Amino acid sequence: MKVDLNSDLGEGFGPWRMGDDNAMLDIVTTANVACGFHAGDPVIMHATAAQAKARNVAIGAHPGFNDLWGFGRRAIKGDSAADIEKMVAYQIGAFQAMATLAGHKVTHVKSHGALANMAAEDDDLALAIGRAIKAIDKDLIYLVMPGMATERAARKLGLPFALEVYADRTYDDTFNLTSRSVPGSVIHDPEEAAAHVLRMIEDRAIRSVKGKRLDCTVESICVHGDTPSAVAMAKVIRERLEAAGVTIAAFANK
Amino acid sequence: MKVDLNSDLGEGFGPWRMGDDNAMLDIVTTANVACGFHAGDPVIMHATAAQAKARNVAIGAHPGFNDLWGFGRRAIKGDSAADIEKMVAYQIGAFQAMATLAGHKVTHVKSHGALANMAAEDDDLALAIGRAIKAIDKDLIYLVMPGMATERAARKLGLPFALEVYADRTYDDTFNLTSRSVPGSVIHDPEEAAAHVLRMIEDRAIRSVKGKRLDCTVESICVHGDTPSAVAMAKVIRERLEAAGVTIAAFANK
Amino acid sequence: MKVDLNSDLGEGFGPWRMGDDNAMLDIVTTANVACGFHAGDPVIMHATAAQAKARNVAIGAHPGFNDLWGFGRRAIKGDSAADIEKMVAYQIGAFQAMATLAGHKVTHVKSHGALANMAAEDDDLALAIGRAIKAIDKDLIYLVMPGMATERAARKLGLPFALEVYADRTYDDTFNLTSRSVPGSVIHDPEEAAAHVLRMIEDRAIRSVKGKRLDCTVESICVHGDTPSAVAMAKVIRERLEAAGVTIAAFANK
Amino acid sequence: MKVDLNSDLGEGFGPWRMGDDNAMLDIVTTANVACGFHAGDPVIMHATAAQAKARNVAIGAHPGFNDLWGFGRRAIKGDSAADIEKMVAYQIGAFQAMATLAGHKVTHVKSHGALANMAAEDDDLALAIGRAIKAIDKDLIYLVMPGMATERAARKLGLPFALEVYADRTYDDTFNLTSRSVPGSVIHDPEEAAAHVLRMIEDRAIRSVKGKRLDCTVESICVHGDTPSAVAMAKVIRERLEAAGVTIAAFANK
Repeated sequence: MKVDLNSDLGEGFGPWRMGDDNAMLDIVTTANVACGFHAGDPVIMHATAAQAKARNVAIGAHPGFNDLWGFGRRAIKGDSAADIEKMVAYQIGAFQAMATLAGHKVTHVKSHGALANMAAEDDDLALAIGRAIKAIDKDLIYLVMPGMATERAARKLGLPFALEVYADRTYDDTFNLTSRSVPGSVIHDPEEAAAHVLRMIEDRAIRSVKGKRLDCTVESICVHGDTPSAVAMAKVIRERLEAAGVTIAAFANK
Repeated sequence: MKVDLNSDLGEGFGPWRMGDDNAMLDIVTTANVACGFHAGDPVIMHATAAQAKARNVAIGAHPGFNDLWGFGRRAIKGDSAADIEKMVAYQIGAFQAMATLAGHKVTHVKSHGALANMAAEDDDLALAIGRAIKAIDKDLIYLVMPGMATERAARKLGLPFALEVYADRTYDDTFNLTSRSVPGSVIHDPEEAAAHVLRMIEDRAIRSVKGKRLDCTVESICVHGDTPSAVAMAKVIRERLEAAGVTIAAFANK
Repeated sequence: MKVDLNSDLGEGFGPWRMGDDNAMLDIVTTANVACGFHAGDPVIMHATAAQAKARNVAIGAHPGFNDLWGFGRRAIKGDSAADIEKMVAYQIGAFQAMATLAGHKVTHVKSHGALANMAAEDDDLALAIGRAIKAIDKDLIYLVMPGMATERAARKLGLPFALEVYADRTYDDTFNLTSRSVPGSVIHDPEEAAAHVLRMIEDRAIRSVKGKRLDCTVESICVHGDTPSAVAMAKVIRERLEAAGVTIAAFANK
Repeated sequence: MKVDLNSDLGEGFGPWRMGDDNAMLDIVTTANVACGFHAGDPVIMHATAAQAKARNVAIGAHPGFNDLWGFGRRAIKGDSAADIEKMVAYQIGAFQAMATLAGHKVTHVKSHGALANMAAEDDDLALAIGRAIKAIDKDLIYLVMPGMATERAARKLGLPFALEVYADRTYDDTFNLTSRSVPGSVIHDPEEAAAHVLRMIEDRAIRSVKGKRLDCTVESICVHGDTPSAVAMAKVIRERLEAAGVTIAAFANK
């Protein structure tokens, strides 16, 4: 059994920082790096790429809405799919340049925040992101949610993709995350999150909150690192997976 | 005799536009395209690249300071050369992605506004920009002012470069532009500008306002297109050059 | 009969301009001025206030989403009503300062673009905007759409308000604008728009596209000025209203 | 003896925070609040005003350059004094609105970062800031550096002002701060900073690094709060001043 651990990093801007990126880079095998639209700037993007390179952590572009104030978490309606395609391509190209400058290479793309939430449910949007990826480099891996529009888009476009689940979130019967407003939708206990993740890997399936088995080969686990407790949870998850004999390795290195 | 005509295009943002880009793309052979920091956004960058492609106009990244409000014309002091390098690389990478999406290819880089003015006089800054270009793609042509820090940087880094003069500006004895505050520093008459340009090409030299001969092979002429009268001037310059037997062709196609 | 003509002005940013503000200030009696979030900057806001003052045109703050790229036309979901209240108050305060500097006085508030569309249909949002207005200055007039959430909010909060209709838009049976996607929803002919407006004033009612009479006393007509044809339409509307004996005067001067 | 302790607060943006504002609000008597241009947003500005109100801490607008990325620390050259006046007035007005919404009142203005450094040495700039303050509310106190252009501007404009010194910085013979590049220009030891401050208060003078006595009545001490050690230093300074019999009170409450 083998799985990747990914985390959203480089989420500062200018004088501000978010989370302990160095601690997370010692835990994860893949970093999704903000590209300057919802967070991230050239200096931070470069530093994150360089730090990832030094630890042999794979990197991907993490494009979001152009919304620093809302951190890309506000759903922005009104852009055409064609415009979203350009917004995403812009961010990928910018991060490729930063990675090149740092001696590293971008190997995947994962959309951020509200853009990711919308793309998971909207085939047009998921395809627009996929087309941006494919146009820039058809070997870039599209990191997607199993069973959702993003997986469908990757398959339809013939893009390489990897299936990702969330360590601290539960799922409904449609492969979607249960709403944060539902009690129990977010897992706060590290051991519970580790068990949740291990079961999905071993079962080759997500178990929905209603008990439904949703087949999928988990290739990557998303862990958060924006708070001290999040870093601690990520560490426990890695330790429990390794103790269970799961190899932790970047999906991009397969 | 052969020369390129270049102009700064794609200088809108969001709902706003500047100048008549389509008219200019019928006149010039090279477009310098704003990259989102002082002007330009993914949609405009893509459209400009596509329109240039359709007319066989060569395109380059036109990076500037991150200052939409000041349009990149305010001198911003305080970034290290290393940070400027990253800011420039970011913009080049972003524009490469937009060009790729539009089926075109970025073949040069020219810095914009206050960044360009500062780089012309500051070797550290000119080298930082050059290093960004070289790291991204060592075949990208650095469009520079003859005799200034940018030409020195291109030579030192072994970068391909092209020498550019301004159609509507006069020069001092140091190869620098005379200050706009000096009467006569800006040429407003199209015929006068055309004659000014033609003489520089034929003489293989700039003639300073004090009459000094400054040797240089003019490879590109910068013309403005942000007002109707600027477009008219560009047209006259092209016509006069062609009438004098000068071939107008992109330096990137040499 | 008396009515106000209002238009959205000062919608440039930095080097960019939109529409012919001076032409519009000769036609309208009230200007809604962008406050720096979707358009407008301190220099433009000040200039617009000064130009309005010189022509005795009343001015109001025209707050929108913090979205220069989308010009405030993208619906942004995710802010609490409490946060919208602060965003709106910020913009009103900023414009009051610009008006003070220009020797003029802010007498009304009208929300812009997607924020306005959302507020027309969402009582919580309309109330949040109303609370911001009331907290800053309880004598500020809330410019609202008759029959919609914004009118209800103004009444509930005891705020002075004025009822506005759109010269170039048709209405459905709920007092809302018909969707732009429906053919005929936008009136392009100046004479038709003028007749549309005059009928609403004389009837003291909107006539919906299905023929339903919707009672309301029209106090202000919104006219656009962002294109040459829009300015021409505004002029025709003013002329036809005056020819019909309607007095054109700012609602704030009543 | 009586003195004020002031600190720059509310310096986050969107999802990011800087320093421990609550800890600082328990130590200082005056808060300079970022207004959205170099840091701060409506939500943070409102929260900071509300927290200050709850602790009876006086508040002032802390306007800076429109440069989130550079946190207002980059010197931006190219704006006219008239434009700076508008930029400053905009920020004051916006913060007044936030304060009003929070039930507090803005009683002073202090410029931030590079704008403050430039204004200290440039009479035109210092006067532009002063004119903005005066136009908005002639009773607003201009917080200035003794002996510098800002003090001269306040006197010339007849504005109320307060004289401020820096707890952790040394001075040259011209009342200016010694450059950070000079060893010893920044005081890192809390006890040393406290002694430095106490001597200035008791002597009614700054002692320059060359030993020159520079007469001035210290009315306010600027302390930093952006790091845990800065908060600790601020606390020691307050304790030592109180132990020496100095009353700590906001200058705005005199």
